[in-house]
Amino acid sequence: MENGTSNGSGHGPAGDEPEGLFSRDLLTSLAWGDYADRFRPAISPEQPGDGLLLRPLQRADYDKGFLTLLGQLTQVGDISREAFLKRYEGMARCPDTYYPVVVEDEVKGQVVGAATLVVEQKFIHNCAVRGRLEDVVVSDDYRGKQLGKLLIAVINLLAKKLHCYKITLDCKDIMIPFYSKMGYTNENGRANYMTIRYD
Amino acid sequence: MENGTSNGSGHGPAGDEPEGLFSRDLLTSLAWGDYADRFRPAISPEQPGDGLLLRPLQRADYDKGFLTLLGQLTQVGDISREAFLKRYEGMARCPDTYYPVVVEDEVKGQVVGAATLVVEQKFIHNCAVRGRLEDVVVSDDYRGKQLGKLLIAVINLLAKKLHCYKITLDCKDIMIPFYSKMGYTNENGRANYMTIRYD
Repeated sequence: MENGTSNGSGHGPAGDEPEGLFSRDLLTSLAWGDYADRFRPAISPEQPGDGLLLRPLQRADYDKGFLTLLGQLTQVGDISREAFLKRYEGMARCPDTYYPVVVEDEVKGQVVGAATLVVEQKFIHNCAVRGRLEDVVVSDDYRGKQLGKLLIAVINLLAKKLHCYKITLDCKDIMIPFYSKMGYTNENGRANYMTIRYD
Repeated sequence: MENGTSNGSGHGPAGDEPEGLFSRDLLTSLAWGDYADRFRPAISPEQPGDGLLLRPLQRADYDKGFLTLLGQLTQVGDISREAFLKRYEGMARCPDTYYPVVVEDEVKGQVVGAATLVVEQKFIHNCAVRGRLEDVVVSDDYRGKQLGKLLIAVINLLAKKLHCYKITLDCKDIMIPFYSKMGYTNENGRANYMTIRYD
């Protein structure tokens, strides 16, 4: 493995690492107490449920249905192994930026949930960093296991741990109640998300 | 200069380059015809106005009031030269990601306008990239010169040129009419921007 760079977060160029795109230590050292009492039955990053494992995205997830899972969220297309690995490496080349988290069903060897924290470097706010919650999806077959809540809580805590001064998301109207329960607010007078599409 | 890496966009580690955080060629090869007729009098990336120059952010902009200008947008804080350069280098280490554009008054040697395109790598949409418009600001003393419009048009065209499948922004209510004129829309049912603050 080639993880363990000097940037302090275990994020760096990825070789054939067992851990993935960033260090799994980040996920098992979160301040889970902030969210623990929202989960009944109790689950956690270390114990996400029977037969389930929460961990960073790995190259091997190409063969574990990661892209098929994303297809439950939006259009993904027919992505070759080479294209997947090229994108994975592209993310790995940006230090301290991409934190894709997955839940694997270890019995089936399938990725059944995913969410990504993307960290942006700023000059404002004393050269701060900010986080964004992106591409949250849980397999239809795994509803009712609190995995969506788990993934969002993990991303929120990871953003805080990495010293983001804020974390934001954009979402459909129908998702507002869900994200509100996870701490997100439509700030008064500044909750607008606008788009130009080129495709 | 250390620009001219193999990634094809002139984006790479920055030395004491004359151009800045990315290649200025990107700004002078945009499809300006898409926006030209919105500007009266006519201005363009090559000719942004008398005595003005549109270009990538440079290290020397620490001494040209770049951070003071950002202070007209939001809280910036007292950033040392070392901290500025560290952040600049941090951005430069992420290939094809950060595209901060500035307008300089060459007579005064001052940065008077700025906007940044941030590009995010995705797996969805055939391993697409998407853009975000961030930190748009024009000095109070340079209002009425169409510089805000110019910067946004440039960022929009740059995102398209870099093959972003979309570009998005978040903004205050009061800015919606302005960004609407520049092509941005509140898409029906999915125009929500939500936040958790940690500072």
